[in-house]
Amino acid sequence: MKNFKLTIEYDGTAYKGWQRQAEAPSVQAELEGALGRMTRSTITLIGAGRTDAGVHALGQVANFRCETRLAAGEIRQGLNSLLPRDIAIRDCCRVPEDFHARFAAQSKRYHYRILNRAMRAAIGRDYAWFIHRPIDLAAMAAAAECLVGLHDFKAFESAGSPRAHTRRHVMQAAWVEEPDRRLTFQIEADGFLRGMVRNIVGTLVAVGTGRLDPSAFDAILASRDRRRAGITAPARGLFLIEVKY
Amino acid sequence: MKNFKLTIEYDGTAYKGWQRQAEAPSVQAELEGALGRMTRSTITLIGAGRTDAGVHALGQVANFRCETRLAAGEIRQGLNSLLPRDIAIRDCCRVPEDFHARFAAQSKRYHYRILNRAMRAAIGRDYAWFIHRPIDLAAMAAAAECLVGLHDFKAFESAGSPRAHTRRHVMQAAWVEEPDRRLTFQIEADGFLRGMVRNIVGTLVAVGTGRLDPSAFDAILASRDRRRAGITAPARGLFLIEVKY
Repeated sequence: MKNFKLTIEYDGTAYKGWQRQAEAPSVQAELEGALGRMTRSTITLIGAGRTDAGVHALGQVANFRCETRLAAGEIRQGLNSLLPRDIAIRDCCRVPEDFHARFAAQSKRYHYRILNRAMRAAIGRDYAWFIHRPIDLAAMAAAAECLVGLHDFKAFESAGSPRAHTRRHVMQAAWVEEPDRRLTFQIEADGFLRGMVRNIVGTLVAVGTGRLDPSAFDAILASRDRRRAGITAPARGLFLIEVKY
Repeated sequence: MKNFKLTIEYDGTAYKGWQRQAEAPSVQAELEGALGRMTRSTITLIGAGRTDAGVHALGQVANFRCETRLAAGEIRQGLNSLLPRDIAIRDCCRVPEDFHARFAAQSKRYHYRILNRAMRAAIGRDYAWFIHRPIDLAAMAAAAECLVGLHDFKAFESAGSPRAHTRRHVMQAAWVEEPDRRLTFQIEADGFLRGMVRNIVGTLVAVGTGRLDPSAFDAILASRDRRRAGITAPARGLFLIEVKY
């Protein structure tokens, strides 16, 4: 059996998330459908991880095993002509038969994008959280520093699919400002709990807009209590950038 | 009568263009509808110029005259809550009663965005022309130089609404490269013929991909013959950036 690794870009706006579901559109189902038509067989994709409804990806990774004479480049081209415009294959390559996109992942990088200005945007409105209130970027950056390292992130886990182990190692957590007050939160960790990035961003924004004291952010992380953290930031600002192996 | 000037951002993907039409969605009709509901009167907008179906704007300008007690800031806020998400008011201000968005315009700036890479994009797919063939940016930049100055641009006028006078003064015409091979053509002129930017870009891309000799570009401009110019670049890459007064 050949094993192929896909690197996938998608606009999550129209999907109920990565994972295949019975009645709702998903990125996984679109990809499996296109692969099935190409290979005339039933393909099951192994994704590096789920993304929630409305979340985007520039570098989601998945693998699949298949008996086929198609080369990796042909699969990439074929998928890009079959897939809808909001899903694109950036890369397809052969990998060793035991490669597993989820188990082999060493870390993931996410970006969360905020547009902080007086007027909402029309262009790119599905790719950022629009916040018109002034945001103190330095306060958010200072609060975010405590995230780096090995911590129990239970305070930032959404309900729905609790993990037995909630300790994760965060290698990077930083804010970057680009022109026109486009603020991007960049975070890399060896794994993420459900909703973790969006719950962290929602709580950091509470710090940035002055509703939460910067020193309180550390205490919320230490409390392991979801009820103390802030709101969940909207899905449209979140991008899975890269999965590292 | 008060006279108000609006600066408008819109994602043109869902519209048949700026101008109101009987049966098709237009940006002008959306704005006039929202203004009518706010002011309980019939408002006619004077746009700085039309944009075609699918073309975007970051800084379209329009004015309207109205008897109202609303302040400019209230109109801006009211419109932004009434308008669909793909239209946003960036600014609203009072202007002298004789201000006319079309007649008073001194120049307009457009950007045309190209994504030049092997794989098509999913994120931002409605905001750029995707071209997978290698593009020689230096060749396009050299060819574009001859556009600057006072010229007859009839070779780059689309059919449909011919102008009696086809001479325009181009102040700037330049290519800019951003990361990930995002190429932007920036052009400013005292006025534009119908389809002029998209026809120029389509012809410059023929130079960039080697289908047209760079020296032929000057000859096409001089010929005043639309049949000699290249294809019309897709609407989704074009942005009206600014109207100067």
